[in-house]
Formats: sequence, C-alpha cells, structure tokens
Amino acid sequence: MKYQPVFYSTLLILFFGLFCFVSLGQGRPGDQPPNLVIIFTDDLGYGDLAVYGHPTIRTPSLDQMAQEGMRFTQFYVAASVCTPSRAALMTGRYPVRTGLVGGILPGRVLFPNDRVGLPSEEVTIAEVLKQRDYVTMAIGKWHLGHLPEFLPIAQGFDSYFGIPYSNDMDHIAARNGKPAYWNVPLIRDTVIIERPAEQTTLTKRYTEEAVRFIHDNAKKPFFLYLAHTMPHVPLFASPGFVDTSARGLYGDVVEEIDWSVGEVLKAIRETGNAGNTLVIFTSDNGPWLVQQFNGGSAGLLYDGKGTTWEGGMRVPMIAWWPGTVPSGITSHEFVTSLDLLPTAAALGGVSLPDRQLDGYNILPLLQGEARSPRDFFVYYRGDRVYAARLGPWKAHFITQTAYPDGPLVTHNPPLLYQLHRDPGEHFDLAPQYPEIIDEIETQLEEHYASVAVQEYRPLKQNP
Amino acid sequence: MKYQPVFYSTLLILFFGLFCFVSLGQGRPGDQPPNLVIIFTDDLGYGDLAVYGHPTIRTPSLDQMAQEGMRFTQFYVAASVCTPSRAALMTGRYPVRTGLVGGILPGRVLFPNDRVGLPSEEVTIAEVLKQRDYVTMAIGKWHLGHLPEFLPIAQGFDSYFGIPYSNDMDHIAARNGKPAYWNVPLIRDTVIIERPAEQTTLTKRYTEEAVRFIHDNAKKPFFLYLAHTMPHVPLFASPGFVDTSARGLYGDVVEEIDWSVGEVLKAIRETGNAGNTLVIFTSDNGPWLVQQFNGGSAGLLYDGKGTTWEGGMRVPMIAWWPGTVPSGITSHEFVTSLDLLPTAAALGGVSLPDRQLDGYNILPLLQGEARSPRDFFVYYRGDRVYAARLGPWKAHFITQTAYPDGPLVTHNPPLLYQLHRDPGEHFDLAPQYPEIIDEIETQLEEHYASVAVQEYRPLKQNP
Repeated sequence: MKYQPVFYSTLLILFFGLFCFVSLGQGRPGDQPPNLVIIFTDDLGYGDLAVYGHPTIRTPSLDQMAQEGMRFTQFYVAASVCTPSRAALMTGRYPVRTGLVGGILPGRVLFPNDRVGLPSEEVTIAEVLKQRDYVTMAIGKWHLGHLPEFLPIAQGFDSYFGIPYSNDMDHIAARNGKPAYWNVPLIRDTVIIERPAEQTTLTKRYTEEAVRFIHDNAKKPFFLYLAHTMPHVPLFASPGFVDTSARGLYGDVVEEIDWSVGEVLKAIRETGNAGNTLVIFTSDNGPWLVQQFNGGSAGLLYDGKGTTWEGGMRVPMIAWWPGTVPSGITSHEFVTSLDLLPTAAALGGVSLPDRQLDGYNILPLLQGEARSPRDFFVYYRGDRVYAARLGPWKAHFITQTAYPDGPLVTHNPPLLYQLHRDPGEHFDLAPQYPEIIDEIETQLEEHYASVAVQEYRPLKQNP
Repeated sequence: MKYQPVFYSTLLILFFGLFCFVSLGQGRPGDQPPNLVIIFTDDLGYGDLAVYGHPTIRTPSLDQMAQEGMRFTQFYVAASVCTPSRAALMTGRYPVRTGLVGGILPGRVLFPNDRVGLPSEEVTIAEVLKQRDYVTMAIGKWHLGHLPEFLPIAQGFDSYFGIPYSNDMDHIAARNGKPAYWNVPLIRDTVIIERPAEQTTLTKRYTEEAVRFIHDNAKKPFFLYLAHTMPHVPLFASPGFVDTSARGLYGDVVEEIDWSVGEVLKAIRETGNAGNTLVIFTSDNGPWLVQQFNGGSAGLLYDGKGTTWEGGMRVPMIAWWPGTVPSGITSHEFVTSLDLLPTAAALGGVSLPDRQLDGYNILPLLQGEARSPRDFFVYYRGDRVYAARLGPWKAHFITQTAYPDGPLVTHNPPLLYQLHRDPGEHFDLAPQYPEIIDEIETQLEEHYASVAVQEYRPLKQNP
C-alpha cells in the first residue's frame, strides 16, 4: 500500500476540476450551470435518521431523498464543533489554515463577545460561484463571525436570514443563573429584525425563506446554503410538531427538519429544477451526547460532538440530483465537507481559489462515474492533530471522550483501528500493523509541512 | 396508562384469529392459503444490515426486500441465545412454558451430549399448518434436539436438510486443545449424509435446497423454515464471497446470506408465488460481541447475545408479501417472534393450539390494517425473568453484560428506560416513574401466575 503525497493530491484536484470543466455539459460556458443547495443541520448524529437506522425517529422525506439519490456512510466534517466545521465547509480548507480553529481559544467556538470571524480574504463557496453569477443566499445559523464585516453578506452571499451564532448563546439569566430565555438576534442581511429570535418557528421560517428563494430564482443559477439552527440545544419545534414524535422533543425537531427537506425538494421540483439542482444534506458535527434525551445518537459509532472519535466527525450525508446522481445507492466512499467547495467549482465550471485546498471535486463520484480521490484525512481538535485516517485505517495520537467526560490521553504508539471492519473503534491493531502507522505518520509530516510553511495565522481579536 | 391483563390479551388473540379467518380471502376454506417462508439467521445483530445502518456491509437484496415490504425496528426474540429463541419461534410460547429454557442448565443451549429436545407434545408452526396440508420443510440449523425423536421430521416437517446444533460444537481438537475442525453432522431428514459438514458451502447448499423446494411446490401451499447456520462463529463463506466484503469475513458471510435472500425471493417470483407468499427475515438473537471482528453489531443498541439488554434480543425483521404487505414502510410496532405462530395460523385459516400462547396474530398489522396488539413482553434469561417491557418502558430487575463480561447484578428498584426516547438504555428513569414500575410488576405477577399454575416442566435428560 503506497499513498500519494500531498502535491500529487493537489494535481488530482486540478485534474478532476479540468475533467469536469471539459467533459460535462453543465460546465460549458454559455449553458446555465446547475444550482447547488446545501442543507446543513446542527448536531444531528450519524444514527439519527431512519435511513441511517434510528428506531423511532421518522424521516420520510430524507428516506425518499436517499432512495432517489446517494447515501454516504463515510462522510466527515473537518471539526467536531460548530465554528471550525462551518469554516471548513465554506472554504474547502482545514480550519488551521483559515485560523478559524474555534474562537479565541482553539477547540472552542465563536461566542457573542468575540470580535473575530472568517477572514475576508478567505474564499467561500458563495464567492466561488459568484464567478458565474450565481444568486446566493445563506439562511440559518452562520457562526463564522457576527460583526457586519464577517456576516454572509461580506462573504459572497447576496442575502442572509438567520442567527449569527448558536441558539444557546447570549442568554438572559433568571434569578438562579439559569437561562430564562436566549437573546439570540435574528438578522436579515446585516440588520437585526427580531431579538430574541422566536425560536419555536425558526425551522418553519427558514423553510419559507428557502422555498421563496427557490421560486424567486427559478430561472437563474442559484446557491442556497440552508444551515438549520436545530437540532442544537435548546430544542424548539413549531407547534404542529411538538409532542408528535415517539423520540420526544429531539425527535419532534428532527422530524420538522425532515418536513423542511421535503418542502425544499418540492419547491425544486415545482420550479422545474429537479434535473438541474444538486442538493446535499448533512450535519456540522456529531450528536451532543451530554444533553442526554435532548442530544442525538451516533448509532454504532463511538462518542459524539467535541471529540475526534468517529461519532464526533462522521455524519449523515445524502446527495440528490435526479437524473444525474444515481438513485438508491449507498456509497461507502471516503468523502468530507472539505470536498464541497471544489465540487461546487466544478459544478459552476469556474476556477478554484489560488491557495492550498484540502478538498477534492467529487462530482464524478456523485455522477456514478468515479471513486473518491481521497485516501487521507486529518482529525483536528482546535489547532492540534488528534487523529488521521489513511484508507480504512485510523490512528489516534490524542483522545479525549466527551461522554462521559474524560481526560486528554496521548498515545504512543497511536491507537490504530480498521474502520471498515470496526467502525465502532473497539479493537486496537497498533501492535500488529506498525507499518501502517509509519505510512500515516509520513502523510502527516507532509500535511504539517503544508500548514507550517504556508499558513496558520491564529485569529487576533479586533480592538 | 392502564394495560390489559393477560386474559384480555388472550381474548384479543382469539378475536384477531377469528377476524382473520372470517374476513380475509386467503383464509377461506377451499381457496389455496398463502405460503409462509421464515428466514432465520444466527447471531445477526440489529445493526448488521445496510438498511439498519451498517456503514460497510452491502445487503442489496435485503434493502430491496425492505423497500418492497415492511422493516420493523422493535422486533424481539424471546431469548438471547439459540435454543430457547428457536423454541419460542416454533411454538409461540415463552421457553419457560416448553421447558426449553436452554440445555440441561438454564441459560445455556443444547449440546451434542444432551439427550433432550423440544417435547413432542409441543405444537410447532409446521404442525399448525399441517391442519391445512401445507408442504413443510426445515433447512439449516435446528438446535431443538438432535436425537431422531426431536428432529424436524418429528415436529411437523415433511423434510429436513441441515445441521442439528451449532456449527462450533462437537469439535475435533488439535494437539493444543484448540479446534482442528468441527465434526458437525449434516442431516437429510433423519440420516447423517456428511460428517463433518463442509461448512464453506452450507449457505449455498441451503439456498439451493430452498429454491428447489419452492419450485417443487409451486402449486401447493408450503411452509419453508430456512434457518441459516451463519453468521454464527466459526464463520464460513462460499469461495465466491470470501474476501469480497469491506467488513472482512463477517461481512462476506452476511453478504452471502443477502445473496441467498435474493435467490429465495427470485424463486418465489419465478414460480408466480410473489402475490401469495409471506416472507419473514429475522435473526435468532443479537451479535456475539466477544468474537470481536467475527461478531456482529447491535448498532445503537446496548450489548448483544446472551444478555437481556436490547442488543441481545431486539433484532432486524423484514416482512415481504407484494400486494399485501405495504411497501417501503418502516414500522415501529412492538412485535416478537412469539407472534409468528398465531400469524401463521391466521394465514392458513386454521385453529390455534389449545394451550397458553404468548404471541399475537400480527397479520392485520402486516396488511397495514391494524397496530400490534402487544404492549407487554418478558425478557427471560434461562428460566429467570431479567426484564420486562410495557409499552415503551423497560424495567431491568437483573442485568449482566456479556461484553465486557460482567457480574450478575440485581436491581431494586429496577432500572427503568424509556425505549422510544432512549433505545440505547443510557438514562435510568426509575426515580421519576415509580408508578410505571408498579404497573410492570402487576403485569409480571399475572405472567408468573400463568406460568406457575399451568406449566414449566424442566427437561429431564433421557436415560
């Protein structure tokens, strides 16, 4: 087993981008390029959808979406908490490159009193697609900086409707210090239009905005980033969904998101865009297990949000594009949220940002024409490498469990798991496979070099 | 919340039986009744099929079977080890009623030197359907007694092809005491035709027998009980399946079973019986976790084989009958293997055995016309009650983990879990819901009375 070093990988990215640009109809200049919709949930776990095996949560729209599209069982986000995961999705770069490894403290997230955000020189998916005049909208939770210069409007989006950080932040305390309510603002473009945001109807209102956007732009190429606030705690569902799920409030909330997905796909169909729109459904990180009944499930994966165990960073992903993405396929390919920006560039037939990217164009994979080019992935926690995966092998150099809350443990040699055979990370094979650990460490050295030489600028708080 | 006592439940069984007999076309005397096929795997876990969320095992035939039928997420077997689970399926009675609570020692299973088996006065599904002249065949692992008087031929089956107990029994040791090979006999009807059974081709040969039986009896009502030897350890797959699965040998074996399911459904279609055959696919108990890479996965459920945690006794179940069982349905109804005998009786339009049964006719549920009549279930380990479930609530009076191997612990008050909201059994709610525990204990008292008064005859070794 010999793996490509990083610069070959970069060539591969360029090659696939070129391949897509040249050979695919939708990439030809002059034609209208396909639309892109990314539906991004918050803290939804690997095991929380019926189609991923949850025994009581009903997700008929997502089940149908999977039946009509491709369901991925090995899709990763690039961080196990909100801010860095979102930064990675938006830029196609590991958070350590953009500096957005968390908030001011690596591993945390941005908080309302932070005065930092995704640097403006970073290039987002929206900015990539603006090269081809896509109409762009962000709906929902942003969490890449809440000052005006960091909001979606400053990052390539024409419009924005949503909350700028997590829905449990900025709370007004009652006498006992516990939250009486959350004073999260609801923003349109750059203006606060409601505070506190009425959270019980957020999912519904996000959905209405999304459906309106799709109808309004039925004839133009569009990019919609629909980042649900839910099912992040505190959980809120619309009146029609409260107390309707066997799974309790968490189930109510997920079932409302499922309804929302159905509405979005319906709008795409109704506007005649089903054959011309790639929809990606996924989650920003694993389930928030300490929330117990109000947290989700990672299914057979170990641990959840805030960790580099599989439950923290492997999440559901469903891709849908009738007539282009093959239907009813379960894919075991190794893919990540870092791949969405290069894929978006291929979709639009536009060039990639001139900087080190960590993603691959997976459009050929989504079209059923190629395997994923990826064989390597780094699991960061803040700005530190905790683990890395090469092919089916994952080495943990540092571990810390979130549920139950555990100590930080350094492993030398690392723990080694074969994820295809042992997705639950039960059986350490390090003693039997030292040569695999060597290969992973070689790849990591190259990765470290690419970060150290070029970048990593820890964010400085604005004055 | 007030639940029906047992005698009302018995009335319900009778009522549903009558309902089925009177109102359903297939139950009318004179018409040919529908066929029944039960495919029963060995140690397959709740999380081992793609359609139940496994990330790398490929099960296209079972996925399609689920897409064309109903997939159940709350289906139980009546014991977490082989012998009592099979006895319960065959008779519709808790093992404590038939005496088959294990082998000579409760909680164990039958071993080659045991001289006991399912008592001949017990009535099996095959005997029930013989009232209507079904052609009956058992293929695969029996494990309800290997002496001639206990084999399938003595229990209502016209023919038999398979191994009489587990595939890891009766081994010939090499010098170090470890198995050199397993000396398990392969039996046709009552005659040993091969010893040791060549296990690498067992799944393939069982499938060929099943397909031949279906073709040979295309014009008669038939009952086929296809009880795979796999994926019980030691694992064996046919040459065409070895080294083909990403999940390793365990995956190879499950994927061969999936192929087998596809062949059986194909034979049913080819003989024109798709509209006239109910097929049930399930497993005898949860995954054998101590086997590590060679054991399966219970998905998000806790623990596995040999325990009364959900992972031990909740298993996959898919029902298929095109045109009768609704297609593409995920059902959360509370059903068990005890329900298969009453359902078979309803299918055949024949009377139930005159004795205490623990199952319900779920044919109306399978037809999409009713909910499951069940709200209560007892989790036995050997002849002792470890836990009981009432609606979504499960109380554990005794627990013991199998993986890792744990001590037997008695709980007073019992542990209490709400399984719809907490399928992984993480959050004990006993302190908050003493009244639920009272209700469960009331139901249990009635259950105990029904066992103590009428039955429980521990098996005596034949001389």
